[in-house]
Amino acid sequence: MALIVQKYGGTSVGDPDRIRNVARRVKKTQAAGNQVVVVVSAMAGETNRLVGLAHEMHPEPSTREYDVLLSTGEQVTIACLALALQAMDQPSRSFLGHQVQIMTDNAYSKARIKSIDDTRIRCALDAGNVVVVAGFQGMDEEGNITTLGRGGSDTSAVALAAALKADACEIYTDVDGVYTADPRLCASASKLNKISYEEMLEMASAGAKVLQHRAVELAAKHDVPLWVKSSFSEEEGTLVTKEDSAMAQLLVSGVEHNENEAKIAVRHLADEPGVAARLFMPIAEANINVDMIVQNVSADGFTDLTFTVPQNELKQAIQIAEEVTKGMDGSAIETDENIAKVSVIGVGMRSHAGVASTAFKRLSEAGINIDMISTSEIKISMVIKQDQMEKAINELHEAFELGQLNT
Amino acid sequence: MALIVQKYGGTSVGDPDRIRNVARRVKKTQAAGNQVVVVVSAMAGETNRLVGLAHEMHPEPSTREYDVLLSTGEQVTIACLALALQAMDQPSRSFLGHQVQIMTDNAYSKARIKSIDDTRIRCALDAGNVVVVAGFQGMDEEGNITTLGRGGSDTSAVALAAALKADACEIYTDVDGVYTADPRLCASASKLNKISYEEMLEMASAGAKVLQHRAVELAAKHDVPLWVKSSFSEEEGTLVTKEDSAMAQLLVSGVEHNENEAKIAVRHLADEPGVAARLFMPIAEANINVDMIVQNVSADGFTDLTFTVPQNELKQAIQIAEEVTKGMDGSAIETDENIAKVSVIGVGMRSHAGVASTAFKRLSEAGINIDMISTSEIKISMVIKQDQMEKAINELHEAFELGQLNT
Repeated sequence: MALIVQKYGGTSVGDPDRIRNVARRVKKTQAAGNQVVVVVSAMAGETNRLVGLAHEMHPEPSTREYDVLLSTGEQVTIACLALALQAMDQPSRSFLGHQVQIMTDNAYSKARIKSIDDTRIRCALDAGNVVVVAGFQGMDEEGNITTLGRGGSDTSAVALAAALKADACEIYTDVDGVYTADPRLCASASKLNKISYEEMLEMASAGAKVLQHRAVELAAKHDVPLWVKSSFSEEEGTLVTKEDSAMAQLLVSGVEHNENEAKIAVRHLADEPGVAARLFMPIAEANINVDMIVQNVSADGFTDLTFTVPQNELKQAIQIAEEVTKGMDGSAIETDENIAKVSVIGVGMRSHAGVASTAFKRLSEAGINIDMISTSEIKISMVIKQDQMEKAINELHEAFELGQLNT
Repeated sequence: MALIVQKYGGTSVGDPDRIRNVARRVKKTQAAGNQVVVVVSAMAGETNRLVGLAHEMHPEPSTREYDVLLSTGEQVTIACLALALQAMDQPSRSFLGHQVQIMTDNAYSKARIKSIDDTRIRCALDAGNVVVVAGFQGMDEEGNITTLGRGGSDTSAVALAAALKADACEIYTDVDGVYTADPRLCASASKLNKISYEEMLEMASAGAKVLQHRAVELAAKHDVPLWVKSSFSEEEGTLVTKEDSAMAQLLVSGVEHNENEAKIAVRHLADEPGVAARLFMPIAEANINVDMIVQNVSADGFTDLTFTVPQNELKQAIQIAEEVTKGMDGSAIETDENIAKVSVIGVGMRSHAGVASTAFKRLSEAGINIDMISTSEIKISMVIKQDQMEKAINELHEAFELGQLNT
């Protein structure tokens, strides 16, 4: 008998009919001879409603009370799903985060799971129940309610699968798997049957929204076989798993994009030790996420520092940069919000040379100018003009023959 | 420094503005040099919405999951009130039932509080916080969420006041105290400044809705001074407390009514031992609340049993009565939903004779026929025709000079 953890997101449980749809899928999995633990998110729209309510009560709500408020969303869903299963004669029991001892640190609103006690879940499973667990929430050592941040239900599901040593963790969403590119922008995008944890991590940080970064990290750490599937179809989905030799034969497995970043260039800084630290320390202290950084030193002893940040943190980043460069002779700050980052990702890059040059050549032939470049072992990211993003995605997709996968 | 427990019902916390209104009152009480624990209900309408959702998921929802669902209502309110207080620079911390160890039995949806651990509350109070606790909810020994039934937040407040040995428990509602009669039906009704626990208990069971029966019982048991006040005015309210000599001087302190009962008469039963038991045992087993019972034995050796039940349990009670009387020669069942019960209540009845005869005489002079009578030490209840209820209330109110109280 296999033990399967299934996670259904907000859209999949968006109303009573959809919850019944989930109940039918869960019951079917149980009827096929599996034990099933289901992790659910708040019904679509509910979290936003609660966030609105919090801000109506306080312009900057304290994160402790914010978490008390937000965690009700998942609590409503677990009760509804358990009732829907019971209405189908499938015994079921719901549990809140604290009831199954999902222990976290006390970083409210972005807590990290430290441990899970599987005793109550095992007991309920062995009694023939489908166990329904509230995602996104946990409890700190003092018994305060914590939440894991947006997308935290994915992490809850993977953590439960790891604690229970489940045979699979299935993430149900509104797309039917991980694609070689966003199908809305690239008509020839194809679904991947399999992808490595590492590629999935790079995809998530390059802009893919299908899985939360931390959930993939956790799955990789505990070697949890992670499926991405659609809750509205019977398609097989994509398996995120350990790298194998077949994956490495592929040069590139996907093209990702992110158009929510902005670029800041700080020009004409004195090229002396500590200049980068002086700029990036205060930016880090302000909790601003710097993504790419490029430094150019000119012949005359000056340097330019160019970096990207999320657009909604741009204003604050500029303030800090102005503060730092105040009194520096001749320095200047330039910003650009009309940028996009496109990335090609693949474990095959480790063993195959020439991926970067193929990418650069293709974009150049297509008349697309590359503004910034950064690379990791299995990823090449390029910053270009935002209005050329869609074209760039399609050019790269074709250059690495991604439309021909699975055929 | 006094410790005050305040409870605000659903209407008082019905929307963000009303929650802010409550926050202002609470802050004022704290600023006057008191420690304050606030117990809140779900926002008005929220519990009904959740009940609707439960029934949408299951025609007969299991009470365990029902409680998980319903308890989210109070959770939303505690977070909102704590945030509203913080927005007014009043430190505050919210707690769920299980977080302050409100331990109950496991009778889901109608659980009884067994114990409360005051450690976390005291700790938070001593740190200068207003403590906000979710009413209506607790936790059983296994860690399951339980709820206390409708009106359960009153009970939560009194139980907390008892556990904390609070100096007062103030129940804020949409009326400004306990009245001698319902002001909507009796223009001369006046507010009582003080009433005994025992009278309040009889009033609650006679139809008064201002306080939950169990809450008053608990207050009496632990001698908690219980105030009924309006959250929309600065009126002093009514104090429910131990009986004193001044109370006993008053013959009657209130006229209550209940028009939600129905009468069942089972006629022509053989007058033999056990006949009443044979009827009322199965009714009790079906959890039907029988209120008044009258038995008349006729000269020919037959007996009539007449009793009242809540209207929404009438159908089931009739079925049981029919079942029981099946095969009994000549028996017949009559029902009447157009009845009302009016009751006069007062600890003065203990020491003063003639209250019953005064009531009967007054109703008779007013042309109101009494159908059933039942009495306790401090209460006389009479069943009359429903369309004469308002008149009966006013006649009795005048007969016992209740309009002249507090003048």
